[in-house]
Amino acid sequence: MATGHEHTVKAFDQDISHLRALISQMGGLAEQAIADAMTALQRNDHELAKQVRKKDKAIDTIEAEAERLAVRVIALRAPMADDLREVVAALKIAAVVERIGDYAKNIAKRVPAIHADGDRIEVVSVLPSMAQIASDMVHDVLDAFSARDAEKAAAVHDRDSALDDFYDSIFRTLVTFMVENPRTVSQVAHLLFVAKNLERIGDHATNVAEMVYFAATGKHLSDRESGEGSN
Amino acid sequence: MATGHEHTVKAFDQDISHLRALISQMGGLAEQAIADAMTALQRNDHELAKQVRKKDKAIDTIEAEAERLAVRVIALRAPMADDLREVVAALKIAAVVERIGDYAKNIAKRVPAIHADGDRIEVVSVLPSMAQIASDMVHDVLDAFSARDAEKAAAVHDRDSALDDFYDSIFRTLVTFMVENPRTVSQVAHLLFVAKNLERIGDHATNVAEMVYFAATGKHLSDRESGEGSN
Repeated sequence: MATGHEHTVKAFDQDISHLRALISQMGGLAEQAIADAMTALQRNDHELAKQVRKKDKAIDTIEAEAERLAVRVIALRAPMADDLREVVAALKIAAVVERIGDYAKNIAKRVPAIHADGDRIEVVSVLPSMAQIASDMVHDVLDAFSARDAEKAAAVHDRDSALDDFYDSIFRTLVTFMVENPRTVSQVAHLLFVAKNLERIGDHATNVAEMVYFAATGKHLSDRESGEGSN
Repeated sequence: MATGHEHTVKAFDQDISHLRALISQMGGLAEQAIADAMTALQRNDHELAKQVRKKDKAIDTIEAEAERLAVRVIALRAPMADDLREVVAALKIAAVVERIGDYAKNIAKRVPAIHADGDRIEVVSVLPSMAQIASDMVHDVLDAFSARDAEKAAAVHDRDSALDDFYDSIFRTLVTFMVENPRTVSQVAHLLFVAKNLERIGDHATNVAEMVYFAATGKHLSDRESGEGSN
């Protein structure tokens, strides 16, 4: 028969598996939200944009559930060292993924303004590629969390500067476009915020990478400034 | 003599007081960061802007301390109901104040770009007023947290829509300015992000208001969508 201690360990493992599953689920919804928001933007699809905004509530609900579970685990199981680091990481990662969902929702919200007055602003061709990089970073860092893979987390971290360079280049492109097409300034300003939201999604994936690395190793990935872009 | 239970209660009260003190300290630093960043922006003071970026590390350090303390309290004291809600709120509020500090740092980072080429962009006269409203919201909501004052938190919550209107008006002003002065588009785009950062600070203060209200009453302030602006 299992001892009391083994019983507790097993209960903890079940709780942490449940926590991981909730975070994977949130991550999947967030990735879908990014993809749908970009599709809505490219196709000027207001209905799809509305769906993205609606579905964000599901992410918020799962986050609240993950938070309750993490707090209950800390209070009831009093995990130590590695285990405690992992639960705290899960608590924080859930909050970050919820914010990633908010950025996708914010992109979706801008769709009508970007296509205002029936005007067809050609979305800079690099914006969907930027969204793909940001979304892949979210995907890979949550995989790294599931697998407790510190090296994979570090690799996501290293991709952030490429995304930042991408953003800087888009920023310059959009500003040049505004100068040359002053009539479109208002719409292009919204595109600027879309690019900024994608860059922030990458920053958040990078922050998660730091949390995963710390949870898995007890060491800080780096002492570099927390990324929040220069533009 | 105190019973074991009383002893635990007293230790909990000391811990929660310490947590409140840490959050007040972070809040004070965040308010100062907003004020200094705006002064640096108005005076084109690169040295002050650099100071804001440097001092942000102090906020990050206190946040890490608050997080460790909150987790320890949950694990060791296993608080129930109201007390647990308050510790979880403290944990989350610390993370939000840290992000408010990041927004101030981001404003400071933009100072050189806004005043690039020795060009003197006249900062829209309303930007410092907007910063003041955002900063007051941060101040008041942290006061509400210290005092467990749900009504005061609700009042901060209600001020957010005024700040959003302010932002919308500045957005339109800046876009008009860009159209009329295409040469300044790059610099004014950075001002647009400054305004957006201030609006986000207000959103975060509003989120804190919701947390304070929930911690104090166990009820949700409203079911309204988490604010993240429409522009």
